[in-house]
Amino acid sequence: MKKAVVLTSGGLDSTTVLALSRSKGFKIYALTFDYGQRHKQELSSAKKVAKYFGIVEHKIIKINLRCFGGSALTDDIKVPQGGKIKRKNIPITYVPARNTIFLSYALAWAEVLKAQDIFIGVNAIDYSGYPDCRPEYIDAYQKMADLATKESVEGRLIKIHTPLINMSKAEIIKKGIELGVDYSITHSCYSPTRNGVACGKCDSCILRKKGFNKAGIKDIIRYIQD
Amino acid sequence: MKKAVVLTSGGLDSTTVLALSRSKGFKIYALTFDYGQRHKQELSSAKKVAKYFGIVEHKIIKINLRCFGGSALTDDIKVPQGGKIKRKNIPITYVPARNTIFLSYALAWAEVLKAQDIFIGVNAIDYSGYPDCRPEYIDAYQKMADLATKESVEGRLIKIHTPLINMSKAEIIKKGIELGVDYSITHSCYSPTRNGVACGKCDSCILRKKGFNKAGIKDIIRYIQD
Repeated sequence: MKKAVVLTSGGLDSTTVLALSRSKGFKIYALTFDYGQRHKQELSSAKKVAKYFGIVEHKIIKINLRCFGGSALTDDIKVPQGGKIKRKNIPITYVPARNTIFLSYALAWAEVLKAQDIFIGVNAIDYSGYPDCRPEYIDAYQKMADLATKESVEGRLIKIHTPLINMSKAEIIKKGIELGVDYSITHSCYSPTRNGVACGKCDSCILRKKGFNKAGIKDIIRYIQD
Repeated sequence: MKKAVVLTSGGLDSTTVLALSRSKGFKIYALTFDYGQRHKQELSSAKKVAKYFGIVEHKIIKINLRCFGGSALTDDIKVPQGGKIKRKNIPITYVPARNTIFLSYALAWAEVLKAQDIFIGVNAIDYSGYPDCRPEYIDAYQKMADLATKESVEGRLIKIHTPLINMSKAEIIKKGIELGVDYSITHSCYSPTRNGVACGKCDSCILRKKGFNKAGIKDIIRYIQD
């Protein structure tokens, strides 16, 4: 069985990716970041997800992106609520270079494990317009990764898989259900209550709710207005 | 004055880069990593260097690359000594994806600062053969960075400068001396004594000593065999 490093946030997309990579027969090494995000709730979801799927190893790495700030997810900036998601404006929930940092750690771990596969749940259909979720970004990251490591120089390239990149949220959810994902243990909200109840109004909640609606599936997590 | 993020290890190359970027009129934001390196001595050198040059801000970021291991610099693997540097074999002192991780943090900080310039002291002449020091790697990283950030989408690209990439160690030292660098506060050794005295035998010491010799300049740091 081949090893794969799977970026696992505890959210809907990365959990589906974990199920997908597992269904393809990979031995899963899940990688989660405690990066100073205000929605710490997702870390406990990530642990539940890792447990649910019975993976080989789950690393939660503490990195402090709050030391840079510049995002509503890591700084004292209000998370926008109830707005329409506009593709032209990258929202304030964008975290500077987040996926670049996450993928770089994944690359390091994959190299040490001699894994040749990394999975990330980026999506460029039902998304917030973050630059580091687009196919052209991933392609460029792949080209850089192919020159970055000792493994690559020795002919063992590490492939970055983005199985969700062209799927709608509804398609992602349907796929996950088919693979046995229990979405009740996942967390998407950027601005949950202290008890981890989703606000239902931030971009991430809006995308999630819309996805479940379109898929015709009931989302059984709790929202504030329920 | 334009801002620049300068990767500063406390070593000879990055200190020269700091002097160079300062001489070009940049306001310097120095970035250093406490990444679990066994030669922690370089952190105290980085602090001295930052102080010496009177920069705007110096961030020392703690990241734990020991959690992955896979290198003589972060793991319980002996640092090779007294060998000849062979370009074909990447030595065990290579740290998986280190420059990729370092540059990704620099990119995040540059984006938050609205700095459009990052400086890194990679060198592909008198070096240990690390893949992430080569021009083709830096070019690919640049292309990825140009797609990674909100700043780039909005037309403000962040440029990665590698002023030393094609210089010999002797040329780097001569340039530094010309710019007023005090190399006695820098640290290069991978395997120093507890008191920070350089071993004189690891790849990094060998490259440093050869550079000073060729430049005809006396290196006034202490080596064990002195």
